[in-house]
Amino acid sequence: MTGDSPIEFWFDFASGYAYFAALEIDAFGQRVGRRIKWCPYTLGTAFKATGSRGLSSTPLKRDYAQKDWQRIARLRGVPFRLPEHHPSVALAAIRVFYLIDDVDPTVAKTFALAVFEAYFTRGIDGGNLDHVIALAASLGLDGTNLAAGAGSQAVKERVKLISEQAVALGIFGSPFFIVDGEPFWGWDRIPMMEEWIERGGW
Amino acid sequence: MTGDSPIEFWFDFASGYAYFAALEIDAFGQRVGRRIKWCPYTLGTAFKATGSRGLSSTPLKRDYAQKDWQRIARLRGVPFRLPEHHPSVALAAIRVFYLIDDVDPTVAKTFALAVFEAYFTRGIDGGNLDHVIALAASLGLDGTNLAAGAGSQAVKERVKLISEQAVALGIFGSPFFIVDGEPFWGWDRIPMMEEWIERGGW
Repeated sequence: MTGDSPIEFWFDFASGYAYFAALEIDAFGQRVGRRIKWCPYTLGTAFKATGSRGLSSTPLKRDYAQKDWQRIARLRGVPFRLPEHHPSVALAAIRVFYLIDDVDPTVAKTFALAVFEAYFTRGIDGGNLDHVIALAASLGLDGTNLAAGAGSQAVKERVKLISEQAVALGIFGSPFFIVDGEPFWGWDRIPMMEEWIERGGW
Repeated sequence: MTGDSPIEFWFDFASGYAYFAALEIDAFGQRVGRRIKWCPYTLGTAFKATGSRGLSSTPLKRDYAQKDWQRIARLRGVPFRLPEHHPSVALAAIRVFYLIDDVDPTVAKTFALAVFEAYFTRGIDGGNLDHVIALAASLGLDGTNLAAGAGSQAVKERVKLISEQAVALGIFGSPFFIVDGEPFWGWDRIPMMEEWIERGGW
């Protein structure tokens, strides 16, 4: 609960709103003087707990979200193209993320941004280990080592546990932020979160 | 699609986020120079189409929403107390609203604000016709006449049809706004909607 603890940024790689949040969150952290802790997890674990489905699997909400994502992309001047196979479960990308994160969180963040960019502009599937490893290798990382690690039972169980623990803490959406214990759900809540930090809550 | 068509404000009387939107939407309309068309409907009709449940009937989301509503109330300096029987289906209030709206939309808006205030600060049930009629009478309206109208088959079918038509148009949430054909979902999208109107879209 200290004023300089990191902001937790929880997300699923196949979440359109998380993509837009990922593009903005570094600048946000700099404005408020906080470190960002990137925390990918499997949103499907939360869906089981809430009995929900993803936006893109829900009538009416699917159409609205697709329109809204294009609208946000135009507003921010960033590319956006929904993959044909959307939504895809990006388990491989999450596993590789945490392997990199153990060594260097800054590199892990760069990798996460590359995964988002690959998925939402070029349709590259974060659930395909070969594609994910090629992406990591393109950033200068050791693909052979990461591929071996991503196949291990240890990292599979770890990602499962991280997702279950997130849900146990009340996290159910993407993006979902925790600041000094305070939860904020959604890309469109970043301005409120900024006001919360600046005022020290209200 | 003209630049001075009214903003449609779709809502369910038992929606916490719609309550906050209702308190702000008049000032919003004045800022952007547009009339607001208040359109209560039964969110349950949308839930059937999307296969969703309300926030307050969903694990995790329920806890977040309750915390978030209190947080918004403190931010805006407005009272908020969730009724013990929440969520309540405010069918009686919707029916009476449209009866009043036929005669005078401004009075209907005043009535709608009174329903929100009664529900979210004093726990008065918008599904209870006696309570709703007492509320209307307290505004100087003819309670006897409204009670008779609210019990008619005509208004029951009309409210059902309005809700079904809303869903057929892609409306599925509360609050949900339509501006010149463009949909905006959620209280927290009011700033984006304002930018949209000011810039004439993007």
